[in-house]
Amino acid sequence: MEQRDSEAAPPTLGVGMVGYAFMGAAHSQGWRTAGRVFDLPMRPVLAAIGGRDAAAVRAAAVKHGWAAAETDWRDLVTRDDVQLVDICTPGDSHAEIAVAALEAGKHVLCEKPLANSVAEAETMVAAAELARERGQLAMVGFNYRRVPAIAYARRLIADGRLGTLRHVRFTYLQDWLVDPDFPLTWRLEREHAGSGALGDLGAHIVDLAQYLAGEPLVGVSALSETFVRERPLLAGASAGLSASGGVERGAVTVDDAALFTGRLASGALASFEATRMASGRKNALRLEINGELGSLAFDLERLNELSFHDHTEPAASSGFRRILVTEPEHPYLEAWWPPGHALGYEHTFAHQARDLVEAIATGTDPAPSFADGLQVQRVLAAVEESAEKNAVFTPVPTAPQASAQASAQTSVQAQV
Amino acid sequence: MEQRDSEAAPPTLGVGMVGYAFMGAAHSQGWRTAGRVFDLPMRPVLAAIGGRDAAAVRAAAVKHGWAAAETDWRDLVTRDDVQLVDICTPGDSHAEIAVAALEAGKHVLCEKPLANSVAEAETMVAAAELARERGQLAMVGFNYRRVPAIAYARRLIADGRLGTLRHVRFTYLQDWLVDPDFPLTWRLEREHAGSGALGDLGAHIVDLAQYLAGEPLVGVSALSETFVRERPLLAGASAGLSASGGVERGAVTVDDAALFTGRLASGALASFEATRMASGRKNALRLEINGELGSLAFDLERLNELSFHDHTEPAASSGFRRILVTEPEHPYLEAWWPPGHALGYEHTFAHQARDLVEAIATGTDPAPSFADGLQVQRVLAAVEESAEKNAVFTPVPTAPQASAQASAQTSVQAQV
Amino acid sequence: MEQRDSEAAPPTLGVGMVGYAFMGAAHSQGWRTAGRVFDLPMRPVLAAIGGRDAAAVRAAAVKHGWAAAETDWRDLVTRDDVQLVDICTPGDSHAEIAVAALEAGKHVLCEKPLANSVAEAETMVAAAELARERGQLAMVGFNYRRVPAIAYARRLIADGRLGTLRHVRFTYLQDWLVDPDFPLTWRLEREHAGSGALGDLGAHIVDLAQYLAGEPLVGVSALSETFVRERPLLAGASAGLSASGGVERGAVTVDDAALFTGRLASGALASFEATRMASGRKNALRLEINGELGSLAFDLERLNELSFHDHTEPAASSGFRRILVTEPEHPYLEAWWPPGHALGYEHTFAHQARDLVEAIATGTDPAPSFADGLQVQRVLAAVEESAEKNAVFTPVPTAPQASAQASAQTSVQAQV
Amino acid sequence: MEQRDSEAAPPTLGVGMVGYAFMGAAHSQGWRTAGRVFDLPMRPVLAAIGGRDAAAVRAAAVKHGWAAAETDWRDLVTRDDVQLVDICTPGDSHAEIAVAALEAGKHVLCEKPLANSVAEAETMVAAAELARERGQLAMVGFNYRRVPAIAYARRLIADGRLGTLRHVRFTYLQDWLVDPDFPLTWRLEREHAGSGALGDLGAHIVDLAQYLAGEPLVGVSALSETFVRERPLLAGASAGLSASGGVERGAVTVDDAALFTGRLASGALASFEATRMASGRKNALRLEINGELGSLAFDLERLNELSFHDHTEPAASSGFRRILVTEPEHPYLEAWWPPGHALGYEHTFAHQARDLVEAIATGTDPAPSFADGLQVQRVLAAVEESAEKNAVFTPVPTAPQASAQASAQTSVQAQV
Repeated sequence: MEQRDSEAAPPTLGVGMVGYAFMGAAHSQGWRTAGRVFDLPMRPVLAAIGGRDAAAVRAAAVKHGWAAAETDWRDLVTRDDVQLVDICTPGDSHAEIAVAALEAGKHVLCEKPLANSVAEAETMVAAAELARERGQLAMVGFNYRRVPAIAYARRLIADGRLGTLRHVRFTYLQDWLVDPDFPLTWRLEREHAGSGALGDLGAHIVDLAQYLAGEPLVGVSALSETFVRERPLLAGASAGLSASGGVERGAVTVDDAALFTGRLASGALASFEATRMASGRKNALRLEINGELGSLAFDLERLNELSFHDHTEPAASSGFRRILVTEPEHPYLEAWWPPGHALGYEHTFAHQARDLVEAIATGTDPAPSFADGLQVQRVLAAVEESAEKNAVFTPVPTAPQASAQASAQTSVQAQV
Repeated sequence: MEQRDSEAAPPTLGVGMVGYAFMGAAHSQGWRTAGRVFDLPMRPVLAAIGGRDAAAVRAAAVKHGWAAAETDWRDLVTRDDVQLVDICTPGDSHAEIAVAALEAGKHVLCEKPLANSVAEAETMVAAAELARERGQLAMVGFNYRRVPAIAYARRLIADGRLGTLRHVRFTYLQDWLVDPDFPLTWRLEREHAGSGALGDLGAHIVDLAQYLAGEPLVGVSALSETFVRERPLLAGASAGLSASGGVERGAVTVDDAALFTGRLASGALASFEATRMASGRKNALRLEINGELGSLAFDLERLNELSFHDHTEPAASSGFRRILVTEPEHPYLEAWWPPGHALGYEHTFAHQARDLVEAIATGTDPAPSFADGLQVQRVLAAVEESAEKNAVFTPVPTAPQASAQASAQTSVQAQV
Repeated sequence: MEQRDSEAAPPTLGVGMVGYAFMGAAHSQGWRTAGRVFDLPMRPVLAAIGGRDAAAVRAAAVKHGWAAAETDWRDLVTRDDVQLVDICTPGDSHAEIAVAALEAGKHVLCEKPLANSVAEAETMVAAAELARERGQLAMVGFNYRRVPAIAYARRLIADGRLGTLRHVRFTYLQDWLVDPDFPLTWRLEREHAGSGALGDLGAHIVDLAQYLAGEPLVGVSALSETFVRERPLLAGASAGLSASGGVERGAVTVDDAALFTGRLASGALASFEATRMASGRKNALRLEINGELGSLAFDLERLNELSFHDHTEPAASSGFRRILVTEPEHPYLEAWWPPGHALGYEHTFAHQARDLVEAIATGTDPAPSFADGLQVQRVLAAVEESAEKNAVFTPVPTAPQASAQASAQTSVQAQV
Repeated sequence: MEQRDSEAAPPTLGVGMVGYAFMGAAHSQGWRTAGRVFDLPMRPVLAAIGGRDAAAVRAAAVKHGWAAAETDWRDLVTRDDVQLVDICTPGDSHAEIAVAALEAGKHVLCEKPLANSVAEAETMVAAAELARERGQLAMVGFNYRRVPAIAYARRLIADGRLGTLRHVRFTYLQDWLVDPDFPLTWRLEREHAGSGALGDLGAHIVDLAQYLAGEPLVGVSALSETFVRERPLLAGASAGLSASGGVERGAVTVDDAALFTGRLASGALASFEATRMASGRKNALRLEINGELGSLAFDLERLNELSFHDHTEPAASSGFRRILVTEPEHPYLEAWWPPGHALGYEHTFAHQARDLVEAIATGTDPAPSFADGLQVQRVLAAVEESAEKNAVFTPVPTAPQASAQASAQTSVQAQV
């Protein structure tokens, strides 16, 4: 019996991905899975993967199931079988690749942080706006918005269940830099990573704070610190977040930790801490939001759970309830397993793929947009400025009309 | 640039799967993912899927990525492109399909419980033993052994970290039958499901208890109950664990809950509770094991965590530690994400696929074997016998030589 | 300025307490505190403490603030300044002291378990009934009913918030006998303690199960075990639960652990485990109750918290909520600290004192009564009987008219 | 039989307490209990209680067991039967009473915060230093240092188990001001309370941070906010933290919340949040400390537990362990109940009483001293200054020689 029912098959969406390290593996899993779990209007095809090292990118293509491999991203972004370019490289190349892909007529998904500077991000926003007029979409990969518990938290807040917000409180704690002999990978070099814990972890929690609260940060006050100022130079390749070092040492040029407070547009107080030096905390993206009518709490180390306190209930019977966010009514859960069957980290990439495919199929704007990514970048820049200026409260510029700021004519190459 | 490096490609393993409901979806995800995450010695190919309803099985093939669809499992198990048959049907068809597949020269993976009766299970063990002589392997799908935290717990116990065991304590609590109007699906009919919470949930915790302790249960004392004795007849198809009912009612012929105590071979006391009537508990497979030197605790609703108490430490600084089982040193984790990045329920199926593929490639016996599945079946039978006999302590027969009990000549068809 | 306002002072209630070990210290704290925290209708006066060792009882009187000391409990129970006798001795002397105190016209508070046998307990109930006609009250000290979270749980169940009960699940796990060299104290000798973990810990959870459910156990099936059959003979005095042993060993004549299942009158299934061999569990009296409309969970190691799941809420926003039972609306909390300020173990004795004083002042029957204590004793006896009879389901006799069973003429002395 | 063994009785210590509201009740319980639980070298006698309202103070004396009542604190601090003055009044009267008591030759225990201003606190320190030369002691009541889990945390840090500290993270969250109609009590008026959440809650966490880390804060950056700027004027008396309001409204003159970051002397980063607007958080004094060798976490809502991560263990078996701080080896626990029997909030006052009595008996300096209280005051002042100056990083003055700053000749009366 033959099985392919071509008359019913949805149109395909060719994906070309640049980068094949940790994020490349995670995105591959997302693209591979989304269409098998969700009923998508277009079927993602893993068309081509790009990377500079020919042998490595070929091995990655085989391993992750990409049909072709390219060693020059410029070739990848212009392939005919690619309609969407997925950028999984370090931040210093985001702007150049994204602008080129958009100019080549492709949709773009770009890993976070959007860029290593506000200027780059502005250029990207400008390119995305131009491309939007041609029907192309651009999204930034703040994948934690796609944790079902986070998406459900947003729904509760949008529905008014928390009332006026008073406090948002975010930490993102990891511990892989506690060991002073962990070597100097690209994530510890300003030229590649832009910043340290701030851009890597802080970008996530800034985005989530603004997303969940539904309003921007208007200013911040910050301290930052590099506890271990020299580390062994890298010996050989690094994989994931692990690596091994040699005898010589080099300077760490990014922050180990960033600590900042702020105010949201509504007047709520916000606090943030991003660090890779919190021994025992592996991936503790934790948040608490307190409103006049209720509160929420979440910890990424228990990503299937959301804590919700309903302050409108009688005091005697109220308390933080642990919602297992695995019911069919919860975001993204309609397609997964029965209640109580846990999802994991990489599901966020399948959810991201689903949302982007649906946006492309329907021509609607995906979120978070490049403009959202730019807004996060502005916050990060204000954090760095405040940290340099004795923690003084530093305003975050109101989002200007990006097109007015960064003309599409600007040469991206000149900036990166 | 061309990418397929055929000289390096591992041999393929054609998989044929029977059944395409909840378990079928989960197994598909496992087969699809295992080879993309782990470096497997053979590459699983989703060759064919089988089911009785032609349209439904075709749709399932498209959705889950199987190359072909079959409406008669007998055709599927004899396909040339199938080397491994994966059985995901209700328990009443396990024996017939498994024996046929083994006789057709295929390896077999069979969902739990192995069968609906000890006699069927014995027949399957006998067939597996014969097939083993021909180099075929057979495994039963107690997937929770592949939760990394469970596998790591087994390692700690095997390493002697708990010392002599005193207590094992298991519950498996769900709540999808609390509503008396939940309809009469096949899982509530003895002829299809064999038993209720006992076989569905109890089988898992009996297997885990014996696996973790490394020793069998020698006897049990049991109570069981059907709280809701009539339910609406099913109206239309059911999906996952959800379904909708009509106006007429029929008799529930299986248990809603089973409660039993027992003794392990070493003398440790054991307690078990399986129920689908525990409101608020969605998938609470929880275990505690207390030994003279330490204790463990686990809850499937937090499947990335294992609690471990080391009783050899000074009392003042000891306590149950929450191990996030996401380190590269943990079972199965070498291939996944950095520490702290959670895995989910369906990862167990990828791990199961990995272990079985490796066993096939190396010709080693996989675990849990059909004999392990039979041993679980004997415990379940003793539980039912005890429950019928006023809870009297009922011995579990010591595993006999299966070949002596159930001749391979026995016609399986006659029994099912 | 003089301060005593004698015209407003409430009448006093002279308390005489027998025993001055762990329970004696805890009860002293209760009597000392109750009148300082609650507005009591009678003021408890610590009139006299009794014990056999003259020096030790004198020291206890000074330490705990008792006005007088007696070395013969017969002298204590007949003192004119004593209106209430509080019995804190091992179980083998409860019946004799209680009956004598009741015959001497005193109110009686007796530590749990009420007695070491059903026969003794029946005699005590009979004596209490006779005394009740003379206006005397008798209460058994199941102090955990006075944990605010437990009392609040009872209120929720009584209010119907859980609906029809399906499951009650109790464990009481400690670990002070894990060390095989812990010596042979009186708690390990049948003649003094009656039983082991069963009477010590099991009595509490049987009482709580029946109290919370509001219905009796109608039968049980039990296993019990003595894992360590010989222990060092006691060298010197023991304090609290700690002691030190010598070189010689003697036989442990009680159970280390008791495991039993049962049925409540309504048909709900019950499970119980009492052990002092669960390494890492210090005082884990844990309970879960599942009803058709909701569920509760509690752990004495976190005694200020109650978990409540309301199954009538929408599935998407429901979950176990952690109620911090420190609100003024909660039982006993009106007199304590602001919300969130934790209470501890010994508060239960102050609450018990309050309730008993109020009962005495108003002439109402206190709970748990001696009849409640007898009912627990009957369950414990059925557990022992079942454990001896291969775990067969053993009915718990329905509470008979105690006066018909145990005539008050029966000489208590002859039995103890 | 007579019981008082006067030859063995320890000397007495007459206590005079000023104030009888929430803190007065808690301190009474501490004084009443300490000598009954611990073997103290001096026996505290509740000699006299002071308050302005004659009827209320008399009632408090009767209720809490004080032998005499005084309506003028000046009379109380000069009583011959008082050797120790315990100050439980609002902060605006601390300095005057403490200095008078010290000048009257009494030991002093003063509730936190030490004073409402740095100047007052300096005067108190100067008076305490003079008095110290006469053998008098002075202590400030940061009672949370006496939570056993906190004291044990300090021991672990002092023993080097955490190594070099990187982060300290404190919140103190309550919710009793969430309701905008909660009335304007003295705690919301700057003239009485000095500040709002900052002095009430922030003082505790600043003290704990410095105590646990064993080093001072060298500077802070702060935001603060008054979310509800007007509240109903108080109608009638308030009790504990509850009160009821009338129709007219008045201005709230203190902060609802204070959020600040800082640096410890060693370079560790610190964050603090004090608020009474976090719905659902009742008494959430939570702390986390991350060091190079280990980490700690604690939550006052679970005050018997300390979480400890030992980073020197193998990654696979490490994790935060939940230490139940109820072992006899733990601070203060030698005198309480067996392991696993929880303590509560007010035990901290008994522990404080024990430590102060022992210091007095042995003539050693108690901690926290008035100088420690002054140091906290300096941090609070720097927080307020930073909050007024756009969050700019504001140094905390290094503790000067208090005697050089605030001459004892300074008239305290003139300042308060």
